Amino acid sequence: MKLARFVYEGVVYCGQVRDSEVFPLGKSEFSLVKDVWEKWENVIRPISLSKVKLLPPVQPSKIVCVGRNYVAHALELGNLVPEEPLIFLKPPSSLIGHEDFILLPPQSSRVECEGELAIVIRRECQFLPLDSDVSDYILGYTCLNDVTARDIQKKDIQFTRAKSFDTFCPLGPFIATDINPSNLCITTKVNGNIKQQARTSQMVFSVDFLVRYISHHMTLMPGDVIATGTPAGVSELHDGDVCEVEIEGIGVLRNFVKKRIKGL
Amino acid sequence: MKLARFVYEGVVYCGQVRDSEVFPLGKSEFSLVKDVWEKWENVIRPISLSKVKLLPPVQPSKIVCVGRNYVAHALELGNLVPEEPLIFLKPPSSLIGHEDFILLPPQSSRVECEGELAIVIRRECQFLPLDSDVSDYILGYTCLNDVTARDIQKKDIQFTRAKSFDTFCPLGPFIATDINPSNLCITTKVNGNIKQQARTSQMVFSVDFLVRYISHHMTLMPGDVIATGTPAGVSELHDGDVCEVEIEGIGVLRNFVKKRIKGL
Repeated sequence: MKLARFVYEGVVYCGQVRDSEVFPLGKSEFSLVKDVWEKWENVIRPISLSKVKLLPPVQPSKIVCVGRNYVAHALELGNLVPEEPLIFLKPPSSLIGHEDFILLPPQSSRVECEGELAIVIRRECQFLPLDSDVSDYILGYTCLNDVTARDIQKKDIQFTRAKSFDTFCPLGPFIATDINPSNLCITTKVNGNIKQQARTSQMVFSVDFLVRYISHHMTLMPGDVIATGTPAGVSELHDGDVCEVEIEGIGVLRNFVKKRIKGL
Repeated sequence: MKLARFVYEGVVYCGQVRDSEVFPLGKSEFSLVKDVWEKWENVIRPISLSKVKLLPPVQPSKIVCVGRNYVAHALELGNLVPEEPLIFLKPPSSLIGHEDFILLPPQSSRVECEGELAIVIRRECQFLPLDSDVSDYILGYTCLNDVTARDIQKKDIQFTRAKSFDTFCPLGPFIATDINPSNLCITTKVNGNIKQQARTSQMVFSVDFLVRYISHHMTLMPGDVIATGTPAGVSELHDGDVCEVEIEGIGVLRNFVKKRIKGL
């Protein structure tokens, strides 16, 4: 099943995507997670996907990211592979949806894309046993672009400022609920050229391990997002570029790039 | 005016505190910010503060923290004073209220308190001009304890894991709306002994500067919290301790410390 949040005729809906149509699940200002389970039966007529504006498919209370989770990417930036997951946060204000614009801020002269598999949490969880089955806590998977101002990241050492600008967290297009995340092909393209390509089987720490590990550090809430790290090949973005993150079984998250004029 | 969020007879309210009483402003599951302005007129009978459980006074979409914003604290940990504000995030899941327990996680053998003045945002803002008056964007000020697992912070380099454990962000007790934040006394005590004491006039970057600066990096939402950094004297917390952050014109944020048994 593929789930979406979208705007149609000025109203926000959650819905189930089938082929080129989406079946609304109810008018909503709440998160996808709440709606899907409360209003599942409230299906009205399907709408063509071409007539809706897709939103980020969830409204997370937090976005937990994992750094250096593919060996080749850690090495390309001159870092060691961490012994434990390297965790950082992106703010909800950085989220945008499919086909929204990534805005290059005037503070940075080098912004890069990082395609990632994102886990969407279904049920509140903490202290999950290290040998437990986590599948019941996961709603599904989507594509995430961990856009990063690389020059600011290097200068600050702390990742936060470099990764928190508005529009720096494209998410979508859909949440796929029935895929096995352990060996999916993940591809990032800029203007149609492949920049990153890897399989999720190459992750240092697996999806299951990450959910359990993070649950011992902070309570995960329904709708929370975990970004599982990026493969090698992170690539610079320029005004006018089109950036796509494609993951097998999920779809293509496409965003347009332009310079931000406003601000410092 | 002092504002609070609290539970009374099982219902969450927002209210105005006067002396030892609180005047409810309406039943609510929403943030203080929304309620105060929508339900201001709906005052019923006052309740004794001794009969309510105080909650964190807002429910922020993000908690933006500023590191090394007092010269003496930067130096005590062997760091330089940054040229620009050093920004990091704490997740909403780390929030607790006045008189809640700070839980020492088994992953750390050295947890420390950091008393800070917190700014509460009133209106959505971005790209505030560098010479603008920001007072209209600020709802008020409260006390925040940026609890930190110092050993994990040193090991990880990234601050996130060390500062994001559940219970690591005590906030409260009230939001003071009518104080001038530029020269307040801030004191942190452990078991009644003063560990940190400074004036907010000693900040490297002022309240006004921080709000403007952060607004150029990420959109600030109503209820968002900015923690303005901690003075020198950060101190270790142990099972059974009582930790208090007191700020002139706001009040005392008191929390109890105990070991967390559950988890890794």
